[in-house]
Amino acid sequence: MTETRYRLAAGTGERTVVDVAGRAIGGDHFTTIAGPCAVESREVILESARLVRDAGAQLLRGGAYKPRTSPYSYQGPGEAGLRLLAEAREETGLPVVTELMDVRDLDAVAGVADVIQLGARNMQNYPLLTELGRTDKPVLLKRGPAATLEELLLAAEYVLKGGNGAVILCERGIRTFETGYRFTLDVTAIPVLKQLTHLPVIVDPSHAAGRRELVEPLSLAAAAAGADGLMVEAHPRPDEAVCDGPQSLVGEELAGFVRNVERAAELAGKELAAAV
Amino acid sequence: MTETRYRLAAGTGERTVVDVAGRAIGGDHFTTIAGPCAVESREVILESARLVRDAGAQLLRGGAYKPRTSPYSYQGPGEAGLRLLAEAREETGLPVVTELMDVRDLDAVAGVADVIQLGARNMQNYPLLTELGRTDKPVLLKRGPAATLEELLLAAEYVLKGGNGAVILCERGIRTFETGYRFTLDVTAIPVLKQLTHLPVIVDPSHAAGRRELVEPLSLAAAAAGADGLMVEAHPRPDEAVCDGPQSLVGEELAGFVRNVERAAELAGKELAAAV
Amino acid sequence: MTETRYRLAAGTGERTVVDVAGRAIGGDHFTTIAGPCAVESREVILESARLVRDAGAQLLRGGAYKPRTSPYSYQGPGEAGLRLLAEAREETGLPVVTELMDVRDLDAVAGVADVIQLGARNMQNYPLLTELGRTDKPVLLKRGPAATLEELLLAAEYVLKGGNGAVILCERGIRTFETGYRFTLDVTAIPVLKQLTHLPVIVDPSHAAGRRELVEPLSLAAAAAGADGLMVEAHPRPDEAVCDGPQSLVGEELAGFVRNVERAAELAGKELAAAV
Amino acid sequence: MTETRYRLAAGTGERTVVDVAGRAIGGDHFTTIAGPCAVESREVILESARLVRDAGAQLLRGGAYKPRTSPYSYQGPGEAGLRLLAEAREETGLPVVTELMDVRDLDAVAGVADVIQLGARNMQNYPLLTELGRTDKPVLLKRGPAATLEELLLAAEYVLKGGNGAVILCERGIRTFETGYRFTLDVTAIPVLKQLTHLPVIVDPSHAAGRRELVEPLSLAAAAAGADGLMVEAHPRPDEAVCDGPQSLVGEELAGFVRNVERAAELAGKELAAAV
Repeated sequence: MTETRYRLAAGTGERTVVDVAGRAIGGDHFTTIAGPCAVESREVILESARLVRDAGAQLLRGGAYKPRTSPYSYQGPGEAGLRLLAEAREETGLPVVTELMDVRDLDAVAGVADVIQLGARNMQNYPLLTELGRTDKPVLLKRGPAATLEELLLAAEYVLKGGNGAVILCERGIRTFETGYRFTLDVTAIPVLKQLTHLPVIVDPSHAAGRRELVEPLSLAAAAAGADGLMVEAHPRPDEAVCDGPQSLVGEELAGFVRNVERAAELAGKELAAAV
Repeated sequence: MTETRYRLAAGTGERTVVDVAGRAIGGDHFTTIAGPCAVESREVILESARLVRDAGAQLLRGGAYKPRTSPYSYQGPGEAGLRLLAEAREETGLPVVTELMDVRDLDAVAGVADVIQLGARNMQNYPLLTELGRTDKPVLLKRGPAATLEELLLAAEYVLKGGNGAVILCERGIRTFETGYRFTLDVTAIPVLKQLTHLPVIVDPSHAAGRRELVEPLSLAAAAAGADGLMVEAHPRPDEAVCDGPQSLVGEELAGFVRNVERAAELAGKELAAAV
Repeated sequence: MTETRYRLAAGTGERTVVDVAGRAIGGDHFTTIAGPCAVESREVILESARLVRDAGAQLLRGGAYKPRTSPYSYQGPGEAGLRLLAEAREETGLPVVTELMDVRDLDAVAGVADVIQLGARNMQNYPLLTELGRTDKPVLLKRGPAATLEELLLAAEYVLKGGNGAVILCERGIRTFETGYRFTLDVTAIPVLKQLTHLPVIVDPSHAAGRRELVEPLSLAAAAAGADGLMVEAHPRPDEAVCDGPQSLVGEELAGFVRNVERAAELAGKELAAAV
Repeated sequence: MTETRYRLAAGTGERTVVDVAGRAIGGDHFTTIAGPCAVESREVILESARLVRDAGAQLLRGGAYKPRTSPYSYQGPGEAGLRLLAEAREETGLPVVTELMDVRDLDAVAGVADVIQLGARNMQNYPLLTELGRTDKPVLLKRGPAATLEELLLAAEYVLKGGNGAVILCERGIRTFETGYRFTLDVTAIPVLKQLTHLPVIVDPSHAAGRRELVEPLSLAAAAAGADGLMVEAHPRPDEAVCDGPQSLVGEELAGFVRNVERAAELAGKELAAAV
């Protein structure tokens, strides 16, 4: 490789703790982010937000702009969804994570999001990475399904180089030969990233698994391996969800889920919020 | 899969022949596209264009905007490169292929390019795909290194659905466990895509191989397997190239290369331009 | 698929508990198997056996016959190693797991081993599988690095069909594009195998990781995801090991390791031996 | 890697030409091996042998011992099949290639085979490799579906180290994420192996493709990329074949196939037998 490698993302000294509207991600903290795939309606996002808050999770997720493999699939509510996220935050106090797909939507998304998500398909979308480097919003950067850890860190480097140091990395499953599940969760990435970078590392087991019943075992595995947090899909009534229903946790089971993963995180040395 | 699959891209009836400034791509035609990785200077792009024309290739490639894994790598000349491409076309008569990375550059790129390339990292960049569906420029859509053929065709569907039927698919190597070469050229994709879609299918062996000496054997393989064309990197003096020098064909060898791949294409049933 | 799929391996009713010389593997039990890569000397295997016993692990592993990628690498002590394993068992009371590579060694290996291991490279060695189906020894069947779960279960089916129902499956990392570690531990395989089969599922994190410092995080992940046990490499002085030293746990740290992974297993619902 | 790498297999000087009962494989020669998956009956193997001879192919293939993923699939005729192969050779004069699975069958197989095939699942079966190093029969060594080229060459090294220099390497598709076809033919392996080793390199497109209509395009690709030969499945009546029917060439089309692939091989610099 003649290319210069990552510099600002490297290092194992003091760990970066990202401040999201007063909630800390990384370091000794363990963070659960939960919510529906898409901000599909006012009712669903508000109900989800209450479930997430009551379950003891720390952040609300929900997509206004949805990158979809097929042009015939539901594409998300767009800007109207951003307004509903703001309303959900206002009611529950939960900071919100939402995805940015189009550089032209940056102002609209940054006006609402507490954390801007860059999806797996956009991990190497350099105009987006460059613009996010100029904002002061934390960035949740998902690993592409065929991206090496070095490529992930070089993508983070684009944001860091622009002046924005608040990057959270997210492992979400890689593409392998195994067809028994959607993606193969790369749990090894967690301790290896911790050796390579000071940035927080969270895991999205929902997109990796593609099936609800796998989400909790994979979440326990990720927490036990040292992840700084989880981002899971949860919906009040997954059977009615407009997207990703089969992999969404059922709202009423979310509290038990949060309790269990926090115990696993404690095993890996995390201090539980509840213990504070 | 509950998602609706591709519709407009499907079909094996009459094959789409894309008209690029009077040159036909697809059907019985075989097209060689060649040129440097980047439009690195006036001298290099003009010299390259003459080499490409004199070698009997049909289109000139060259990047003004370069997607690079590292933010510290050369990022291309930008808009100045587009002007140089226009000059090279004017001098040689060769239509030009160049990459679009940022939706905000669409007008500038479309103002010069005869074919707009969407790179492998942007295969699922839906805002770009959607905008390209609204232009009347042919689109060269490269397969992502971990994209299935179905995902590639669904990405093409975004462009077709927007009203632009001039899509050329490009296989450029997939990511596998083998570390002996950069990517594994998926030669099987050629006949399988021909069964699935009416769109032309070309191959980029340069990025797959990563090494000059592999480019000709892979090109012969692709042509013999039925590809509608090739896109290769070529530079007057690869040792001095600012990027991708090790995988660039040497300018003076390009004529022999074109002759050889056309013989392989003829084996697969193509009518050679030279034979007309 | 026109092939008939697994039948005897299928099912999620009563879980198979394999009896290894009075120790149970599977069901509510959690088992740690540890020991050196190879039975390299009398001193090392006896010292290892004492460390394994004192650490609270349940079985001793050690290879007499070593499958090696290169013919120039150390190939194991052969039959002499089997005698040393028997001696180690006699001294410590630990049942022993050792690998069979050659069908001609079956009697010798079965004469000593409490569990016969079939290595990843031999997962589809049908003569070996067939012969093991005729023995009454438990079989530890490692998943090949590119084997699907269906192929693993069909390999197990060869043994079950022969009349030997005591098969323990072992995930040990799969081959992917990621080059940051030797193999990618497929933690998703654990809950999915639990859905597909009644057989016990253990994990070998040592060969997956290739590096000692990754073994504990991966082990915690596997236990938290519901594995029925672990098989790890451990050596009194890894720096002096004839093979796999870099991935071997240090003998004196084994007790702490066993304690930690048992806590993770408890989270996943296992009853600890210590608690009995 | 601390392991010693291949030595005897390395080198790009004089190319090894393997003598198979008077027919040369490697160097300037191009060899087509064809025949049914299994020696399923006297009628089929004799009819196949005549088709193969009349089509101008050089060797007959056919399996007596079949490695099958499922224990419930057809396992081959065993020793009776060897006798039928000998009869087919006697009638047609074609040397025969057949697979060895079990070290205990070595004498029986070596008593009939002109080339002993080691299948992809047994590429790292070290007892078999070691025994084959002691025979004087040419060995056709198939690459495992997840084996790197280095591992393939180290497997060959086991045979060479034993004193048997007549090893023919065979690429037959690797396992990747793409599910549109059984395996992904790794055409890049052909020129890269030619750079790494002096041993002949042939290609099996039938097992890679899994579908008849892909076999010819992949064969043309392999020949054009410089392969020393092809091994294809062909059957008089594929619809009635006991195994691999869907990927078998139809007997009556074999002559046209051989003619086409020889033209592609000529492009890559081979001297055609017909030209002698």
